[in-house]
Amino acid sequence: MPDNFADRLLKAVAEKKTAAVVALDPVYSRLPAEISEHRELNDETDAEAALDAVLEFCRNVIHIVAPIVPAIKINSAFFERYYNEGLEGYYELVQEAGGNDLLVIGDVKRGDVGHSSEAYAAAHVSDSPFSNLDYMAPDAVTVNGYFGSDGVRPFIEAARAEAKGLFVLVRTSNESAAEFQDVPASDGRKIHEIMAGLVAGWAREPGMVGTRGYSSVGAVVSTRDADSARRLRELMPQSIFLVPGYGAQGMTAEQCGPLFKSDGSGAIVAAGRSVIYAYEDPRYVERFTSEWKQCIEQACKDFVVDLGRVAKIG
Amino acid sequence: MPDNFADRLLKAVAEKKTAAVVALDPVYSRLPAEISEHRELNDETDAEAALDAVLEFCRNVIHIVAPIVPAIKINSAFFERYYNEGLEGYYELVQEAGGNDLLVIGDVKRGDVGHSSEAYAAAHVSDSPFSNLDYMAPDAVTVNGYFGSDGVRPFIEAARAEAKGLFVLVRTSNESAAEFQDVPASDGRKIHEIMAGLVAGWAREPGMVGTRGYSSVGAVVSTRDADSARRLRELMPQSIFLVPGYGAQGMTAEQCGPLFKSDGSGAIVAAGRSVIYAYEDPRYVERFTSEWKQCIEQACKDFVVDLGRVAKIG
Repeated sequence: MPDNFADRLLKAVAEKKTAAVVALDPVYSRLPAEISEHRELNDETDAEAALDAVLEFCRNVIHIVAPIVPAIKINSAFFERYYNEGLEGYYELVQEAGGNDLLVIGDVKRGDVGHSSEAYAAAHVSDSPFSNLDYMAPDAVTVNGYFGSDGVRPFIEAARAEAKGLFVLVRTSNESAAEFQDVPASDGRKIHEIMAGLVAGWAREPGMVGTRGYSSVGAVVSTRDADSARRLRELMPQSIFLVPGYGAQGMTAEQCGPLFKSDGSGAIVAAGRSVIYAYEDPRYVERFTSEWKQCIEQACKDFVVDLGRVAKIG
Repeated sequence: MPDNFADRLLKAVAEKKTAAVVALDPVYSRLPAEISEHRELNDETDAEAALDAVLEFCRNVIHIVAPIVPAIKINSAFFERYYNEGLEGYYELVQEAGGNDLLVIGDVKRGDVGHSSEAYAAAHVSDSPFSNLDYMAPDAVTVNGYFGSDGVRPFIEAARAEAKGLFVLVRTSNESAAEFQDVPASDGRKIHEIMAGLVAGWAREPGMVGTRGYSSVGAVVSTRDADSARRLRELMPQSIFLVPGYGAQGMTAEQCGPLFKSDGSGAIVAAGRSVIYAYEDPRYVERFTSEWKQCIEQACKDFVVDLGRVAKIG
């Protein structure tokens, strides 16, 4: 059995000296021309050709960012849109990233009532139990906790059994998040803080806390408000925060700062489009012209430097 | 373009004279012996053999219940656990049910930030846009609204474009639902009632309301408390409720009653395990011995009669 997920994540962050992670949510229409043009079949309406191009791009991104960041987040939505073959591609990328010195976060946002969550946990948290299929599951997945404890428990049990991790949605990065997640409850807390209280309890479940005091039950937290960030740090002291929203969604490194503890631990920050589509960004195009791989590599390094200003590692 | 989803659902309910729908969430270990024994390969650890058996069972259930109920709800979790081939099976069953006079509800409980929800909506709400793949999407899907409007809007837009429907999670049927969904907000409403208010707004979006005043944006609602049920009916007057929890989860027809309007419209009730595993129920085994198909058929008919006592159709 591998080490506790939180321990493995902290170790990877220390080794790569950054809390920056890359989010992979590829859209065919934004692929580099080199990828969509060099193949014979090149047609967005051809599911196989489009998926093939998307996967080639993703494999490249994995190899470019693997030496730089500790983890990659792969969003299953962008693969499910290619149906079963897309899902096969998703699992292939999970293996590919895992075999290239990256921790893998499967951004699947699943959640259901207990007996259905068991099936989701079997699909997304546990390694394949089948004798004729050797899929490894990601190291961690994102989970939607709307159902409460009995909907989340199967994920916790699967994670405990195989030293995997979870990141439960608490405060998301989109603009409309406020209209539900920020509504005040009668005790003065906001709805997302109610969820944070549940997450804190799940984080303390037996077998989830690693040697450094962090739990394998983390939280997806993205708030640009420093007070709110500090409250969430207090409410979930043992949870590592997975912070989306940096870059294309407009969140700055400074705004990420309060989501870390004062020692620079406790959070990882994911950037997606600002890194993987850096070849569309005039700043990088000017420097590397059409060398899209160099654009991605430089954008990833710049992200690490930028985040390093607010989160000093080790 | 087909008619508005709400109109199609109401029409199907009127034709079959019942608001009962069957939920398909198959687990290999509970399949009838006849299905798991008649095949050469019969091993839960063999992904292909297990999935093959699950799909054979599901096709049988579809054909048994198709003449009796207006719709079937298929939970993707139980197929995803067989990875990409499982998802292929899920889509095959969606086609199979749709071709057999059943409306199909894809119980996928997806939800994410906007650009990711677009990908999920492409996967699960829109029919295949690919020239070489002719998958029809289900007639409706379940959606998790935790992200607020910009996370739900891509599902609404996809539904509008192809006259599909949505059921947004409001109050779920599991015991722990209360610990989050029933927490009081500062204005006296419970958290799930905050979500209900959002759903009521989404239900009024242009193009979603059908000729009978119901919207294609419905809600997943399961509460055994009559007062709570009446409040939710008031909060979401245009939404059809998809009510899980009947049968194996312990909800009675009487408890479903207040979720309907006084004219017997406004809700559909889903029973899963109490129908599809009726061959494990001593009451049916006594009558039909090992004729598992007859057990399922009778349990489905009994469900219709039981529900008919509280929801008079037409």
